[in-house]
Amino acid sequence: MYRSHNCGELRISDVGKQVTISGWVQKSRDLGGLTFVDVRDRYGITQLVFNMDERAELCTLARKLGREYVIQATGMVRERSSKNLNRSTGEIEIEVTELNILNESQVPPFTIEDDTDGGDDLRMKYRYIDIRRNPVKDNLIFRSKLAIETRKYLDHQGFIEVETPFLIKSTPEGARDFVVPSRLNSGQFYALPQSPQTFKQLLMVAGIDKYFQIVKCFRDEDLRADRQPEFTQIDCEMSFVHIEDILNTFEGLTRHLFLHTMGVDLGDFPRMTYDDAMRLYGSDKPDLRFGMQFVEINDIAKGHDFSVFDNAELVVGICAKGIAEQYSNKDMKDLTEWIQRPQIGAKGLVYIKYQEDGSIKSTIGKFYSDDVLHSWAERFGAEKGDVILILSGEKDKTRKQLNELRLEMGRRLQLIKPGDFKPLWVIDFPLLEWDEDSERFFAMHHPFTSPKKSDIPNMMSGDHETLKNLKADAYDMVINGAEIGGGSIRIHDRALQAKNFELLGFTKEQAEAQFGFLMGAFEYGAPPHGGLAFGFDRLCAVMNGQSSIRDFIAFPKNNQGRDMMIDAPSPVDEAQLEELSLIIKQPEA
Amino acid sequence: MYRSHNCGELRISDVGKQVTISGWVQKSRDLGGLTFVDVRDRYGITQLVFNMDERAELCTLARKLGREYVIQATGMVRERSSKNLNRSTGEIEIEVTELNILNESQVPPFTIEDDTDGGDDLRMKYRYIDIRRNPVKDNLIFRSKLAIETRKYLDHQGFIEVETPFLIKSTPEGARDFVVPSRLNSGQFYALPQSPQTFKQLLMVAGIDKYFQIVKCFRDEDLRADRQPEFTQIDCEMSFVHIEDILNTFEGLTRHLFLHTMGVDLGDFPRMTYDDAMRLYGSDKPDLRFGMQFVEINDIAKGHDFSVFDNAELVVGICAKGIAEQYSNKDMKDLTEWIQRPQIGAKGLVYIKYQEDGSIKSTIGKFYSDDVLHSWAERFGAEKGDVILILSGEKDKTRKQLNELRLEMGRRLQLIKPGDFKPLWVIDFPLLEWDEDSERFFAMHHPFTSPKKSDIPNMMSGDHETLKNLKADAYDMVINGAEIGGGSIRIHDRALQAKNFELLGFTKEQAEAQFGFLMGAFEYGAPPHGGLAFGFDRLCAVMNGQSSIRDFIAFPKNNQGRDMMIDAPSPVDEAQLEELSLIIKQPEA
Repeated sequence: MYRSHNCGELRISDVGKQVTISGWVQKSRDLGGLTFVDVRDRYGITQLVFNMDERAELCTLARKLGREYVIQATGMVRERSSKNLNRSTGEIEIEVTELNILNESQVPPFTIEDDTDGGDDLRMKYRYIDIRRNPVKDNLIFRSKLAIETRKYLDHQGFIEVETPFLIKSTPEGARDFVVPSRLNSGQFYALPQSPQTFKQLLMVAGIDKYFQIVKCFRDEDLRADRQPEFTQIDCEMSFVHIEDILNTFEGLTRHLFLHTMGVDLGDFPRMTYDDAMRLYGSDKPDLRFGMQFVEINDIAKGHDFSVFDNAELVVGICAKGIAEQYSNKDMKDLTEWIQRPQIGAKGLVYIKYQEDGSIKSTIGKFYSDDVLHSWAERFGAEKGDVILILSGEKDKTRKQLNELRLEMGRRLQLIKPGDFKPLWVIDFPLLEWDEDSERFFAMHHPFTSPKKSDIPNMMSGDHETLKNLKADAYDMVINGAEIGGGSIRIHDRALQAKNFELLGFTKEQAEAQFGFLMGAFEYGAPPHGGLAFGFDRLCAVMNGQSSIRDFIAFPKNNQGRDMMIDAPSPVDEAQLEELSLIIKQPEA
Repeated sequence: MYRSHNCGELRISDVGKQVTISGWVQKSRDLGGLTFVDVRDRYGITQLVFNMDERAELCTLARKLGREYVIQATGMVRERSSKNLNRSTGEIEIEVTELNILNESQVPPFTIEDDTDGGDDLRMKYRYIDIRRNPVKDNLIFRSKLAIETRKYLDHQGFIEVETPFLIKSTPEGARDFVVPSRLNSGQFYALPQSPQTFKQLLMVAGIDKYFQIVKCFRDEDLRADRQPEFTQIDCEMSFVHIEDILNTFEGLTRHLFLHTMGVDLGDFPRMTYDDAMRLYGSDKPDLRFGMQFVEINDIAKGHDFSVFDNAELVVGICAKGIAEQYSNKDMKDLTEWIQRPQIGAKGLVYIKYQEDGSIKSTIGKFYSDDVLHSWAERFGAEKGDVILILSGEKDKTRKQLNELRLEMGRRLQLIKPGDFKPLWVIDFPLLEWDEDSERFFAMHHPFTSPKKSDIPNMMSGDHETLKNLKADAYDMVINGAEIGGGSIRIHDRALQAKNFELLGFTKEQAEAQFGFLMGAFEYGAPPHGGLAFGFDRLCAVMNGQSSIRDFIAFPKNNQGRDMMIDAPSPVDEAQLEELSLIIKQPEA
């Protein structure tokens, strides 16, 4: 028996007990005749004490212990004279009578502390040491608990977890599939799923009624910060449902998760149409933890000979409360330069300071009288001391830029309370998105999303403008400005699905070759159905107020898709390539 | 709202209620003025009734419904005049006042009945229809419940579920890796894990203490019957444990699963050494649902001038109870031919009939006196009416053949009670297995398995014979003759791991290139640890008394590794190969 107790459970009530614990040496201190060793495991830290006068040999051995040595110690629990009340085991220590070194350790490459001195690359390479640190370990424990609670809720709601296959079919449309050469079928490839979308729909056709799965998905994208080639989804689908049934079910799931892992009651989720989200926040994932809604002023801004506004499709602004005095001209210049950076790309920033003395100070004073600008202030609900920030230009671009500015002002003014969670549903997404460059429609959500019932006739026979305005039964769940999940009611009718593929530029033959199995299934009694998927890694991060998903993944890959610890990917044997009938094309000289 | 109730929940107490249900048309019958339609969903079947006299239009519509049409019906629940007590909803029916056809269906390619007329290929191609059948649907529900109970038990025991990566490193040693070309790292490949073995060991080094995962694994083998290229494991690992801790924990898990999904109490599991299992059953996965243990008779069989036995390394038999009268000479001849089939390959079968009248009838009467044969009967514990079946030859081969014969006799004599479960642990496996053909050692379990502590000195310096006899801290769980899971205490010492790689024929460089990250981790405080993995698909099948895992997998592949439904694997675009820097080698003409 390696231990009678773990390192986190001994209390004052255990004093006098003979115990054995095992764990890692966190640190040790020699204080004259006494040596103290903190021993650590997943559950906590317990102090060992060795007495040179009473047990010289044992104490000498204890003094040789290095950091991260794995040891086993037996002894009597006793009350500490100097208690550490920040630690659950801080009232006791173990007077050691037997000590075994179970394994030695080299000096670890970084400190095993909450704030480590290890850089990112080092932490990734020695991830098995990094996970010993509380912040990373706690994230993994949180993730496990979140998965347990997810399953508990969905099981209770009658969902069945069904494992869908990982070796599926590659679809050129989806792009960015990881492919897997088949040895038994020479020259052919499987693909790893970007999502179990078609399989979960087939499970609805199969009568499974309520499906879920916590499942790995794969996407071979050029990795931006905080993307991983493999990621985890809570994937769900339900039959015989309208949009309300789905929103209620998964709002319930999310509330359950927050309540049972963090004790946070989220209350009812507000709902906002995509159009409103774009109009009021310039984003389909608005952060509602602070206000500063957009105010459009085309009607009062145009016609005053200010050509910048007169020529703009949209003039729109936000009101930043109480910064008129605080923000100097230089601050405003900095902000203007910030918004003009290429990443954001605004041409300029117009501001109107409604000063404490009631006067107006503005960059556009020569075009607009103070009276006019006072009326603007009224429109924005601005009070003395506020500053109105205005952008103008092409509608979509301007909204996007103002969204960035709003978020930046939220950060600069520290409007976000730590521990605050503001969820909402964004609904009524467009069905199709027109891409000017390739002159074709893309699916805003995915090709299986149903238009709103009232839009079906428009979809079957509408002109280009009508098609652009089709609305889908699609929805996203957003928390604190992050998209946590999204889904839709699906098409379950073969003709409608075929029409959608046609609008998306598939030939009949392409649609049949790639998704014939699904359209075929629609001919054998497909029920109305819909669902959604949550980004599980993202959910973990957002719930913990963190922006990066990487530390919620036990063994993440870096931005080049490499696992630094095991050094993958790597070359394979010629023999293996031979078996797969593959040749690697050498780069041209 | 598509439904107020599902098709399995209405009871006599609901009579008089206005309800709406949705589902699939199972069948319909016209009886004069009445039309009855059975509508089915995951939860059950409910009878609808339409009355031609009262609602002619509705009844006419109902008569047009085809099998598997998806419908929605609203009406009043009423008591049936002719009740069907085999069905939970059999006391009521719904008198329909509103009927919507939600989707039509072509005539399904096979019947949606417990015993279908669909062949295997058809069922695989239309798996989404096959899953509507109760036996397949119930299997998937069982599997989901088994996963829930697995997680419940392990969570309660303090295990954390940690997701390990799917895109890992290919190891030539492991062979049969599926590989995944990396686009971002040209000419390099990931591999899909055959198991998360090294990662779970790293999690122990990381201090996770108790890890589990229900996880897909991949093996690109030539597919024998009932193998799948992707399969699911319950994968577990624990730190600071001896073999007893692991056996107790997972015996506990297995008992929990049987109790909470089937109401079966398995009791304590017997333990049997590998040597005993081979000696008494000729198999490392003995089926204990019936007796017929092997009896070795070298000492009494040799020295009677019967050269077949005299020249045999092993003479061994089993006693088949009470078949002396029943089994004619022809039956014995059939049995002899069965055992001589090339799949089994015994040279011949010696039998001794201990007849009801006390006389002995045998194929070897001219070598052995009746007295001698009576003494054999005593050794076998044979009574009047029994038949002793004896094989002889090289030890390992003979045991294997007699194992086949024992299992065949168990089947022929119907010794296996349906619903009987006989679990056991097989322990003390050999560490290494000598392969005569390649003249090298293979790891009996895997290269990370620890020898028994007492065998470490023998391993570090033993000669060939000593090495062959090394015992490992390895164990298998066997139920009803099927291996459900297996595992071992792992090596956690770099030098011992290096020695094991050396014995397995790795050069130092190969060991470093492939498993350097693991041996490196052993230098930073690796705790003693061990674990096991259960075959989840197999466990599902064995618990349900079935021999094939395929119907416990929602979307299985066929014996050529193909998904018949989606038609994968398949060729990929030239452009995609180009991006991956791959060329497909055409077969030579």
